[in-house]
Amino acid sequence: MVDIATRVWNHKWKIDPIVRSLIDTDFYKLLMCQSVFRNRPDTDVTFSLINRTKSVRLADLIDEGELREQLDHIRSLSLSRGESTWMRGNTFYGKRQMFRPDFMDWFEALRLPPYELAKKDGQYELTFHGKWPEVMLWEIPALAVLMELRGRAVLRDMGRFELQVLYARAMTKLWEKVERLRAVPGLRLADFGTRRRHSFLWQDWCVQALHEGLGDSFTGTSNCLIAKNRDLEAIGTNAHELPMVYSALAEDDAALARAPYDVLSDWHEEHDGNLRIILPDTYGTKGFLDRAPDWLTQWTGIRIDSGDPAEGAETAIRWWQERGEDPRAKLVIFSDGLDVGKIEELSRRFDGRVRVSFGWGTMLTNDFIGLTEGDRLAPFSLVCKAVEANGRPTVKLSDNPRKAMGPAAEIERYKRVFGVGAQVEREVVV
Amino acid sequence: MVDIATRVWNHKWKIDPIVRSLIDTDFYKLLMCQSVFRNRPDTDVTFSLINRTKSVRLADLIDEGELREQLDHIRSLSLSRGESTWMRGNTFYGKRQMFRPDFMDWFEALRLPPYELAKKDGQYELTFHGKWPEVMLWEIPALAVLMELRGRAVLRDMGRFELQVLYARAMTKLWEKVERLRAVPGLRLADFGTRRRHSFLWQDWCVQALHEGLGDSFTGTSNCLIAKNRDLEAIGTNAHELPMVYSALAEDDAALARAPYDVLSDWHEEHDGNLRIILPDTYGTKGFLDRAPDWLTQWTGIRIDSGDPAEGAETAIRWWQERGEDPRAKLVIFSDGLDVGKIEELSRRFDGRVRVSFGWGTMLTNDFIGLTEGDRLAPFSLVCKAVEANGRPTVKLSDNPRKAMGPAAEIERYKRVFGVGAQVEREVVV
Repeated sequence: MVDIATRVWNHKWKIDPIVRSLIDTDFYKLLMCQSVFRNRPDTDVTFSLINRTKSVRLADLIDEGELREQLDHIRSLSLSRGESTWMRGNTFYGKRQMFRPDFMDWFEALRLPPYELAKKDGQYELTFHGKWPEVMLWEIPALAVLMELRGRAVLRDMGRFELQVLYARAMTKLWEKVERLRAVPGLRLADFGTRRRHSFLWQDWCVQALHEGLGDSFTGTSNCLIAKNRDLEAIGTNAHELPMVYSALAEDDAALARAPYDVLSDWHEEHDGNLRIILPDTYGTKGFLDRAPDWLTQWTGIRIDSGDPAEGAETAIRWWQERGEDPRAKLVIFSDGLDVGKIEELSRRFDGRVRVSFGWGTMLTNDFIGLTEGDRLAPFSLVCKAVEANGRPTVKLSDNPRKAMGPAAEIERYKRVFGVGAQVEREVVV
Repeated sequence: MVDIATRVWNHKWKIDPIVRSLIDTDFYKLLMCQSVFRNRPDTDVTFSLINRTKSVRLADLIDEGELREQLDHIRSLSLSRGESTWMRGNTFYGKRQMFRPDFMDWFEALRLPPYELAKKDGQYELTFHGKWPEVMLWEIPALAVLMELRGRAVLRDMGRFELQVLYARAMTKLWEKVERLRAVPGLRLADFGTRRRHSFLWQDWCVQALHEGLGDSFTGTSNCLIAKNRDLEAIGTNAHELPMVYSALAEDDAALARAPYDVLSDWHEEHDGNLRIILPDTYGTKGFLDRAPDWLTQWTGIRIDSGDPAEGAETAIRWWQERGEDPRAKLVIFSDGLDVGKIEELSRRFDGRVRVSFGWGTMLTNDFIGLTEGDRLAPFSLVCKAVEANGRPTVKLSDNPRKAMGPAAEIERYKRVFGVGAQVEREVVV
């Protein structure tokens, strides 16, 4: 029996919106947004889209009109009453009222600021200008829209059963990963796959499959909307944009050298427990830890997001040991370029030496590799980054020079200030 | 949005009926039923269920109460108005009014006769007695009910996502077969998988997948309900029960020797074109063809349903040549134990020598092999056969002694009458 109202409702949408909620975003974005709203609300920033995979010519694949419709739809969104209630009333990381009333009042009134869109060399130049707390919320939806529109462009040519078989294959592939992960002792794993997901519905499926398949080993999802809808833990802490913008705002080299610690000092005042996670690689992990103030050694753990992950964790373990901390009480979160083999390998290596957790992203929510002719659904490396703050360029070095960003002269200055020497290049997978 | 009426409707069923229509059966059953209704309506017959795969202990797996509910539900079914309209108004094998008004009047009033059910050695003894045209219609629904109840017993222990992945894997497996079959030049293939299907919904999916994936190479389905719902050709001709019952009714050896030809003589009066398909193996293909009257060589083709299929087809080709017929104008339908490899092999071998068509059964609609632990969903060899007619036992020899049926003394008599010598044993796959 056809539900006529549902059918009419479904058909009256002019578009099929990809992002339908302001909380269809990563939890750490909201935490950082609140921190920025409190500490640096008036900073003017520019965020830009960067496609590191030049061979995927997005402007040839995706119709500009369709892209604008999706972005315009996101600008029409505001926080719903139920979403607000969830953010105000839910417990995050064991804490009530994680989001303060003044922040929630602001967020409830928020609409995302305008975007600028142009085409160049087969790519879209998509840029967002404005106040930091507003602009920063564009990152995840902008990425999700481009990833999903690219997918739709490929799916458009496929037959009905061909489509069903495509998803059948993707489900089978994911489930085989789940079955392998079940055998990993003491596994702790969360979904970090919002930004490069194949689609919202697919991410939602993947999260539920992990929940059923891994039970308590699945700790939650970074996606707030899915966490809310599926009654799961929302997971995430902080990201590179904080030290990048704080550093760009520094007036001189001395202030620049302090900036990454200022970020964590602000964070320290706001958060405790499992939210006190160091992200050390923005300007080189080794130097960052060597110069870190002692109070940072008390933090719960560290997130390894570039470079060789085992080496990063070994560096952290040595640092804790040198500072008299017991690494077995500390948490290492791996979140860069993970797939099952790497998760198994890192679990084995650090078992009993440190607490380990995984933030699994692209290869969880977008592993369509090998499922279409010409691999036209394979994920690619799209990012959306703060490139300017109060008129100054931002810089990121990371532990992998291929992930470095910023003007060459500024990169050299940052390398000098942060004492970054030779680095090993690693392929950026996704 | 939940459609409340649909939800209430779905929940008010006391059971989830497996067979929901009297035309959820093979097309050839209806053709044969009409023939029996016309030529031998008063024959008393007994049909019995036989599970050749003793290791699948159906009575341990399937609750007797559930089985009775399903069988009782089938007894409550009658032909719906839409079904009757389709049978009366549709074109079958290019012909209008395939089903005569007197037959349709009878069929519209039909309810299936009672069944007898007992348990023995871990198996169900399921038996149907009554007039031939009524009892014969139990065969396909009885098989479908037992196959699907066995599947449900296995599925009951599985999680929601585990289930979805199970079907994802089955879909992937089928689609890989479709992709291989696309490469077979001049392929003609129909679904013959009703009786041993995993489930009705799964057969329905498989048929639609073949339709999309193979295009015109997919010629239709033996399942009348699916043919009607999906607007496809209903496919099928006749089966062993006709010669088996005709033979059991023969008064002496001379009449017995004539009986299989009497069947085809009756058929000859009713049908022409692609419905004139010889099924020669009931009492040995070689002898049947050697003794066949000349008018049979004019028939359109032959169906190979036991023994080595290539050998069966070669025997038919030689027979046509000996009788002065051009095999390239004749049709060979393979319908026994097919899977993709065998289809490819037979297509290659007979390409250009004879017209070839495939009736693909169990490995189309029930290939869940390897998809569960302990292979608890693998298909098994269940049949429902006429075992008695007017108080006399039926006999089947076939071209594979493992498929032989009937009392030993009668088997010997039939072998003598039909001049069947040594036969090669072949494993009965499904």
